[in-house]
Amino acid sequence: MDAAPTSLQFYFDFISPYGYFASLRVDDLAARHGRSVTWHPMLLGVSVMKVMGLRPLMETPLKAPYVQRDVLRYARRHHITLGRDPGAPPMKPLTAARACCWAAVHHPDAAKPLARAMLHAYWVEGRDLSEPASLAGIALPDGIKAGPLVSAVAGEDAALRLRQSVEASLSAGVFGSPTVIVDGEMFWGLDKLDDVEAWLASGGW
Amino acid sequence: MDAAPTSLQFYFDFISPYGYFASLRVDDLAARHGRSVTWHPMLLGVSVMKVMGLRPLMETPLKAPYVQRDVLRYARRHHITLGRDPGAPPMKPLTAARACCWAAVHHPDAAKPLARAMLHAYWVEGRDLSEPASLAGIALPDGIKAGPLVSAVAGEDAALRLRQSVEASLSAGVFGSPTVIVDGEMFWGLDKLDDVEAWLASGGW
Repeated sequence: MDAAPTSLQFYFDFISPYGYFASLRVDDLAARHGRSVTWHPMLLGVSVMKVMGLRPLMETPLKAPYVQRDVLRYARRHHITLGRDPGAPPMKPLTAARACCWAAVHHPDAAKPLARAMLHAYWVEGRDLSEPASLAGIALPDGIKAGPLVSAVAGEDAALRLRQSVEASLSAGVFGSPTVIVDGEMFWGLDKLDDVEAWLASGGW
Repeated sequence: MDAAPTSLQFYFDFISPYGYFASLRVDDLAARHGRSVTWHPMLLGVSVMKVMGLRPLMETPLKAPYVQRDVLRYARRHHITLGRDPGAPPMKPLTAARACCWAAVHHPDAAKPLARAMLHAYWVEGRDLSEPASLAGIALPDGIKAGPLVSAVAGEDAALRLRQSVEASLSAGVFGSPTVIVDGEMFWGLDKLDDVEAWLASGGW
């Protein structure tokens, strides 16, 4: 009997529009090949700025205006209504990322719905989720109550879990959002999702 | 009567493996939609390092090992035999880029074959084309003689033309290799060639 197929590992930063776009496709993509997906928040502020020594994308000459145009072009093509200018300064992603890590431990069945709810609140509704209290204002999934969530993301346990999660993503070599790892093979970028699907369909090349 | 459709503008750096891979596809892609392609050498050393203030790709932690793996993965999938380790230090691209600019003026019909010959010599045969004399050792296309080519790329005229070409690419917003501009719409990255084709097929979105 074959072992159960392993999950795809999906890494994203809440402030990354490409990460948001990928979040809308990655589970369906995996399901077409009998796979599940494990979501991991990561922090571009750590990987790009601290480890790689690069500027933030939207402060990089030439690249910033291109990315802004490319994001809007993708949204238009896929009929996604963004409630936020992709060129505007991002929120602080720590609160949302900590909420994911806390939910993964305490409400594992609701962790992915919570991540989706926060992505939707930020990218579609244009809400700023920088502060823990902001999470009380969004539509939370069943099983997650605002009070415990807000307390948890302000606490040290969620912060520690996020640090561990970010450290693990760096150890896995993850630097950008979105990144998908399929059976140890890493694919970086929204534009690579078709390759991820081809890899799943073919078993690799 | 409709005006003739405009050429696609294709920008690449000789030291970019993704630029090389795109060079193998972009003319066929355009031809499927009745378009021609104009090739432009650009310099990542200017756009990435000087204008954008970033490190060279292959000196960037996390990204360098990923890109190396991704390049080899693409080559394997598309049956391209690379004669060069994509992680090895690159040649100086000025000679090859100047040769393109010189040929575009003095041998326009041979300019693209010359660019292809240099890309093949560098990426498939593993030759270093940093020095003008190195061009005498490669298989040159009809119409290009080694003596005048080597003299030209060592001269000031070719250097000036390249500076103008690089300046024009920056003015057009080009920062990465490959970049394709279709009717004013810019697409950056090898992974975007399928989008370029979709854009051509649909007239945009």
